[in-house]
Amino acid sequence: MKGTIPCVNVYLMVILMNRIITIGREFGSGGRELGRRLAEELQIEYWDKEIIEAISEKTSLSQEYVNQVLSGVPHNLYPITIGQSFYPMHSFYYNDQPNRVLEAKNEIIRSLAEKSSCVIVGRCADYILRDIKPYRIFVYADIESKVKRCMDRQGEKENLTPEQMKKKILSVDKKRAAYYKNYTGNKWGDKANYDLCINTTDAVIKDIVPHIAKML
Amino acid sequence: MKGTIPCVNVYLMVILMNRIITIGREFGSGGRELGRRLAEELQIEYWDKEIIEAISEKTSLSQEYVNQVLSGVPHNLYPITIGQSFYPMHSFYYNDQPNRVLEAKNEIIRSLAEKSSCVIVGRCADYILRDIKPYRIFVYADIESKVKRCMDRQGEKENLTPEQMKKKILSVDKKRAAYYKNYTGNKWGDKANYDLCINTTDAVIKDIVPHIAKML
Repeated sequence: MKGTIPCVNVYLMVILMNRIITIGREFGSGGRELGRRLAEELQIEYWDKEIIEAISEKTSLSQEYVNQVLSGVPHNLYPITIGQSFYPMHSFYYNDQPNRVLEAKNEIIRSLAEKSSCVIVGRCADYILRDIKPYRIFVYADIESKVKRCMDRQGEKENLTPEQMKKKILSVDKKRAAYYKNYTGNKWGDKANYDLCINTTDAVIKDIVPHIAKML
Repeated sequence: MKGTIPCVNVYLMVILMNRIITIGREFGSGGRELGRRLAEELQIEYWDKEIIEAISEKTSLSQEYVNQVLSGVPHNLYPITIGQSFYPMHSFYYNDQPNRVLEAKNEIIRSLAEKSSCVIVGRCADYILRDIKPYRIFVYADIESKVKRCMDRQGEKENLTPEQMKKKILSVDKKRAAYYKNYTGNKWGDKANYDLCINTTDAVIKDIVPHIAKML
C-alpha cells in the first residue's frame, strides 16, 4: 500500500482537527452576538454575512438575491443578477439560480470548515457539516425579550412599534423554519438536532459566553 | 404602615435569595449524575429520591406507591399504604390518595426551595416553583447513547438485552411526558420551558459540569 494517498481520510482528518461550532438562532434572541463573542473568546474565525458575500461572488448573483434564497422567500420572486436588472423569465438558467446558490453555499461552508476552526451562524451549517460533527448550538428566547432586544437595537431607518416588531420576528422565524425543513428535512429548533440549546431570555450574553466556550 | 408584616413579600424575598436549579431529564441521559455533580460543584443541597421518602413520610403512603403516582402510572392500580396490604376499593379515601401525594409533593418542594439553595431533579419542580424562576435545565441524549449508558450501569438484578433496555427507556420517557403534560399542561422537554437544554450524547458529564455551574 506504500505510496497510495487515502485522499478522503486525509481530508476528513484535516477537517476533524478544526473546532467547528454552528449557531442556529431565533430572530432577536442574540444568537449572532453570542456567536461573535464565542469566536472572539475561542480566538477562531467567525462567519455570518460574509457567507452571503462569498456566494454572491462565486455565482455572480446579487447579495440581495442570495439572501432572499437563503431566507426562505419564494425563489422565483427575485431573479436579480449583479449588473443585470432584467432577466428572461421561465428560462432554464433562471429556474436553476436557487440551486446554484445552494450548491455554492455548500461548497463555501465546507471550505470554511476545512480551512480553520470557526463559528458559523445560520445557513443550515449544522446539517451541511453533519459528517464532521460540529458542535451545534441553538439560541432562543421568549417573544417579549426578543421584541425588547430588537426594539433596543433598531436603527434610525427602521421605526417599528413593538407590535410591528413582534410580527416581523414571527414572520422571519417562520421563514427560517420553512427553509430549514425544506433543506434538511428536520424541524428547525428541535433540540434533538443540537448539542446545546440556550434560552437567552434572562441571560446577559457577554457574561455566559466565556463559560460556554469552556464547555466545548 | 409601621409594624405591619408583609408576609408574602418576605417569603418571596427569602426564597428568591436561594439559588434553585431544577433538572428535567430523559431516562439514561445522565441527568441525575449531572444534577448531583452540579450540586457538589456549587456546594448546595441535592434533592432527588429523598423527595419520595419525604412524601411517603408525610402521607403514610408507601414509597413504592408514591413513586408510581409520580411516574405517571395509572394511580388506582397501586392502592398500597404503609403497613396495610389491603385497602377497601372505591372508597373516597382511596381515590383521594394521588391528590394527597401531589399536594405533599408541592409542599415539600416549596419547603426545600425556601430552606436553602438546591438542585431538584424531576418531579415537575420547574413548574411548581415557576413563580420564583428557578434555573431550569433539561438533559437529553440520542437513544443509542442512552441505551449504552443504561447497559453500562445496570446492576446484577437487571439483566436486559440492549433491545429490551431501549424499550424500557422509551416506556419510562413516555410516562414522564404524559405525567408532565397532565400535571403542567406543557410539553415535557419542550425547550421553551427551560433555560438550558444539554445533549449529553457525546459529552463527558463530569467535564462539563464545572462550566455549567459557572454559567448560572
